[in-house]
Amino acid sequence: MSDWDETFDVIVVGAGFAGLTAAVEARTAGASVVVIEKMKAPGGNSVISDGGVAAAGTALQESSGIQDSPELFYRDMLKAGMGLNHPALVRVLTEKSAEAFQWSADYLGVQYLKRVDRFGGHSLPRCYAAEGITGATIIKALVTKAAELGVSVRTATSLSTLVTDERRVCGVVVEEGYDARKKTGTNTKRVKAERAVVVATGGFGADVPFRSTQAPRLSQEVDTTNHKFATAEALVTLLRIGSTPVHLSHIQLGPWASPDEKGFGSGPLFADYIGFLYGILVHPLTATRFVNEQSDRKLLSEAVMEIGSPCVCISDQAAVTRSGWNIDRALRKNVVQTFGTLEELACRYNLPAQPLLRTVERFNAAVSRGGDDEFGRPILTDSPPIQHPPYFAMRIWPKVHYTMGGVRIDERAQVIALDHRPIQGLYAAGEVTGGVHGACRLGSCAITDCLVFGRIAGKNAALAGHLDG
Amino acid sequence: MSDWDETFDVIVVGAGFAGLTAAVEARTAGASVVVIEKMKAPGGNSVISDGGVAAAGTALQESSGIQDSPELFYRDMLKAGMGLNHPALVRVLTEKSAEAFQWSADYLGVQYLKRVDRFGGHSLPRCYAAEGITGATIIKALVTKAAELGVSVRTATSLSTLVTDERRVCGVVVEEGYDARKKTGTNTKRVKAERAVVVATGGFGADVPFRSTQAPRLSQEVDTTNHKFATAEALVTLLRIGSTPVHLSHIQLGPWASPDEKGFGSGPLFADYIGFLYGILVHPLTATRFVNEQSDRKLLSEAVMEIGSPCVCISDQAAVTRSGWNIDRALRKNVVQTFGTLEELACRYNLPAQPLLRTVERFNAAVSRGGDDEFGRPILTDSPPIQHPPYFAMRIWPKVHYTMGGVRIDERAQVIALDHRPIQGLYAAGEVTGGVHGACRLGSCAITDCLVFGRIAGKNAALAGHLDG
Repeated sequence: MSDWDETFDVIVVGAGFAGLTAAVEARTAGASVVVIEKMKAPGGNSVISDGGVAAAGTALQESSGIQDSPELFYRDMLKAGMGLNHPALVRVLTEKSAEAFQWSADYLGVQYLKRVDRFGGHSLPRCYAAEGITGATIIKALVTKAAELGVSVRTATSLSTLVTDERRVCGVVVEEGYDARKKTGTNTKRVKAERAVVVATGGFGADVPFRSTQAPRLSQEVDTTNHKFATAEALVTLLRIGSTPVHLSHIQLGPWASPDEKGFGSGPLFADYIGFLYGILVHPLTATRFVNEQSDRKLLSEAVMEIGSPCVCISDQAAVTRSGWNIDRALRKNVVQTFGTLEELACRYNLPAQPLLRTVERFNAAVSRGGDDEFGRPILTDSPPIQHPPYFAMRIWPKVHYTMGGVRIDERAQVIALDHRPIQGLYAAGEVTGGVHGACRLGSCAITDCLVFGRIAGKNAALAGHLDG
Repeated sequence: MSDWDETFDVIVVGAGFAGLTAAVEARTAGASVVVIEKMKAPGGNSVISDGGVAAAGTALQESSGIQDSPELFYRDMLKAGMGLNHPALVRVLTEKSAEAFQWSADYLGVQYLKRVDRFGGHSLPRCYAAEGITGATIIKALVTKAAELGVSVRTATSLSTLVTDERRVCGVVVEEGYDARKKTGTNTKRVKAERAVVVATGGFGADVPFRSTQAPRLSQEVDTTNHKFATAEALVTLLRIGSTPVHLSHIQLGPWASPDEKGFGSGPLFADYIGFLYGILVHPLTATRFVNEQSDRKLLSEAVMEIGSPCVCISDQAAVTRSGWNIDRALRKNVVQTFGTLEELACRYNLPAQPLLRTVERFNAAVSRGGDDEFGRPILTDSPPIQHPPYFAMRIWPKVHYTMGGVRIDERAQVIALDHRPIQGLYAAGEVTGGVHGACRLGSCAITDCLVFGRIAGKNAALAGHLDG
């Protein structure tokens, strides 16, 4: 074809964790690489994430005496995913998780906090936080590495079409000068991929028409932690050329979100990293606990939604201190509030005071026993009872956080068509794919997914011309 | 275009409940109609169904003193569907259920048994059984009516492609002389649709690669009640032209199936119509009840699968007599067995005898109280206790029964594209569509779905040329 405007070995669509990782690996493998990104800056939803990475069998776990394994991680993911996960993909993610984590630290230079945490649904501590507790730390490292390697990152450039010939995907049509608000660009360009295209465009959590087709209750009325351009158009482009849709109706709500701020906000750090680990979550009418606060996101969100109005997450100064997290931002925004006594706290949230005191007393007894008979929640070693003022509290109401569904891929990150065969020249990684997480993604597994499958997609895309046909 | 071999106003793909209903309505509205059916005879999965139809607000309910309403039916469907149902479609189904049921009796001449039953998940009795308790009764009436009206039904004719021009679906390419076993035909034909194509090709319960992509556990090892050619190829054809997939991973297991026979078999009549209504379902190791036997199919199947090996459904002669059902076939096939005493029954199924006696005693006490405190199961008025030999028992193990997912349609039964707009000239009805039943279809609602949306699709298809663009 003579009508291409430009040619690269590998075209990566999307400049988040998965896309930039794929680009770095494809370039490292010797390919010429361009990344196109519809927004005016790289990072997409990734930069506003909390930068948590789950990995099994790391050096830090070992030195902390935590005996983890890819097999245990695999079983945790399958359990949360309610068996809908594609087992082969979960094997790949869990077995390569420690290596990918190490690669991000050693090769990309990402700094992680020297701690390992345990979040809902994980059997033991295996979650790491990038410095600043933000995905921006990882994105910055990826952007720097990509620039060093000579990867061209074109922002404000949107995918319009995947160009196919009879055998394979051979390029893309893009809109340059793209304005996501207006959904228009200034000019069209045809870019040829000598080897392959990697689609890593993220999820559709902010795409109300698309998500509510799959789950009608997730209408405009339900907020999302995603940035507002986390929409489905690239996924639709993949489906239009015959990619297999998987698990589109499995959409995750974040159970640690606050109705008192927009978007992801500042509250989740308190709820997920402190309240659900050391504190309690209580019913707004009865002030009783109603769920194991360390359940996976699906169970926890459904339990709160079932109640029908915001619940209250409560902790104390000892927990905040012990956690080591800085929650100043949430306090400044009044999303988390402090109280000298539990009675004042009860008054502020309109909770019945005596039942709340009894709930705290029962929970403290469970803490001192080291076992929560009521809801089967594991009690962390040396967990302090809730009795050290000031008390901290936050209202809890779920928001759309992650879309488990997307296009089907295989262990090589090739996109699989409706005839169950790989589409030659087409790879995908990250939230735009489906099958890895099944019915419910565990916390800190999204970035692991992006790193592991982004690396695989990038390496294979760089070699695609040689392996195909 | 000059290369069409034949032309009809309306082409219907699939000769089951939905397709034949659409054909009859399109023809009644004045269109010339052809039905193509890949198998050598009409009926598909429909003829092997039990012929149950759910309808709210019927004359028979009224004369039986049952106060039902479309609103109550709507709420039951949404509850079972876990809120994933498309509310507008559920409104249509429930509001038109009584009319469609009456139409099948009056216009098609379907004979129904003079009884109204209540099955799991329905708030009250609203299920009707076609004579012979088989879908064949309804299919025969549809085939007869179609022939009377001059609808051409072409068997052994398979859909290859939906032909589209820029504006709309304008015809089909078919394989004649089709052999479903070999997946080949003898010759290709292009048939033009002057007005519209209606796709009513059923579900994909027997398509192991397709279903296990959505739900990996539903491998070859899991049996299905469907006929073995209930596969996804027409659904894939719809997806290829940009139809929106909805809820593909929501696949229903029938909780009333027996591991001691292949396919749908003879056991479900006993389990669903007698055992779960009057009898009990017990754990294979403890001989205790573990679930409300009148739960919806999803809850019940998951409860049994969770146990991990077949459970035992137990009832007695009084229940069989009272039910009025003839279960001779299941007895002849030894799928249901009879015993003089509960001790003999326990011995046969390797259940602990004393715990079984205690379970029956507790259940009988609940029956005499008229309330099941343990599992919240409603006790039917004048329900007999389990104490009249012979005792009847059947092993229970779920089978893939129904695929809730399919293509998105609107209230007019038009197929909706990925851009959220209707695809002109294309309608769909029945199990090939998604959204009506959400996460879980209630019993007897599949035929209602086929009748209601088959009628709508047929009527609108007949007028499509006049309404479009």
